[in-house]
Amino acid sequence: MTYCVGMMLDMGLVLMSDTRTNSGVDNISVFRKMFTWNVPGERVLTLLTAGNLASTQALVSQLEERMKAPDERDNIILKSPTMFQVATEIGRLLRTIVREQQDANGDKQRSRFSASIIVAGQIAGMEPRLFMIYPEGNFIEASGDTPFFQIGETKYGRPIILRAYDPAMRAEDAIKLLMVSFDSTLRANLSVGMPLDLQVIERDAFAVTHEQRVTFDDPYFQAISTSWSDALRSAFHSLPDYHFPEAGE
Amino acid sequence: MTYCVGMMLDMGLVLMSDTRTNSGVDNISVFRKMFTWNVPGERVLTLLTAGNLASTQALVSQLEERMKAPDERDNIILKSPTMFQVATEIGRLLRTIVREQQDANGDKQRSRFSASIIVAGQIAGMEPRLFMIYPEGNFIEASGDTPFFQIGETKYGRPIILRAYDPAMRAEDAIKLLMVSFDSTLRANLSVGMPLDLQVIERDAFAVTHEQRVTFDDPYFQAISTSWSDALRSAFHSLPDYHFPEAGE
Repeated sequence: MTYCVGMMLDMGLVLMSDTRTNSGVDNISVFRKMFTWNVPGERVLTLLTAGNLASTQALVSQLEERMKAPDERDNIILKSPTMFQVATEIGRLLRTIVREQQDANGDKQRSRFSASIIVAGQIAGMEPRLFMIYPEGNFIEASGDTPFFQIGETKYGRPIILRAYDPAMRAEDAIKLLMVSFDSTLRANLSVGMPLDLQVIERDAFAVTHEQRVTFDDPYFQAISTSWSDALRSAFHSLPDYHFPEAGE
Repeated sequence: MTYCVGMMLDMGLVLMSDTRTNSGVDNISVFRKMFTWNVPGERVLTLLTAGNLASTQALVSQLEERMKAPDERDNIILKSPTMFQVATEIGRLLRTIVREQQDANGDKQRSRFSASIIVAGQIAGMEPRLFMIYPEGNFIEASGDTPFFQIGETKYGRPIILRAYDPAMRAEDAIKLLMVSFDSTLRANLSVGMPLDLQVIERDAFAVTHEQRVTFDDPYFQAISTSWSDALRSAFHSLPDYHFPEAGE
């Protein structure tokens, strides 16, 4: 499994992904699921990937291949004039890759090759944008009503984001929120694992403004993990107490 | 979908279930998923059901039918000498019901007829016990390491139970905890819905000691729902702040 979150804030974009891939619980590896391309001062683009590793690696490799011929007309990353076109082209490429495997392997295996992608970034002269691309190649864009996307194991870490997210929050607070959300997920699902990749793309920087690999012995992550358990328990105890109704009530 | 939790505590058993069933989001109904049989002073038995409604209704109806002939040898509910045998017989009955539908409808529909059951109760002379029965008819029992079971939409409401559960907690606090867990689930999954059914079975009471249907306008549930959002946000803000590393760090 996987857990990735892309968050749109007033200050820009904050992204986090885990790095565990598994084929059964007895076969786990560390693979990066966050990929960035940057033309300094002009555009920055980050992909978060979930799903079949062969499919997502094929996607990233094909994007990389095209980077080696930057003058090619079909260089999605460098040549697309808008983020919308980037998402459209990556969606098309993803669909082709997933379909090819599905067609080659028959009906029963369809879901095995599936993959989802979060695309985040900004191109000069335009706003930062955030998309989620489905294995079918179509996609949706984040908006004020739904300002963040999760892919992979989304459920355990969702309630805290729903409650604490605020578009005006600082990047530091968004990182704190993501750490909490990832901590809840890591505790509940073995197939989501450390280290985590973290990235901040500030509005109009056209570059990655902060990047970090959070390892299992990261003191801040450990502090969050410990204090969150205590804070949750205190929050729980602060709630009004239940009383059994009196007889006759 | 469904959300049910059965919790084993030092004081006895605390159980909660939602009541929503749906076949598509445009076809929802209210159905009870908590069923109790009681021989006062001798045994009390409660089932929580998740999965295909026709399968779980068939199970409960067959158990009820057998209650009408209480002298029959195969009256599972009244005649089984131990909770373990109750679980074994209910598992056998569930497997038969699920298999019958699966065999009649072919391979592609197998998962559609599946159902899971939580069985909780106590028989005189023995300890209170809590089991989770799989659609295959086999089952597991709660223990000190895993003192609660969830069935249905289990993920959203799990982190808070993992962190706040304590076997020594009072029934009132367990109810508070379940209300929080259900609130998180109700907010995230439309197919889990109010009203909720709540039951407390105190150790050695051999009866349901407290029972309540929690409706959407229940003042305590509303208070929990509101205060939990605030408490979570305060808990989040109480965590240590993230700081970007200084240059050169």
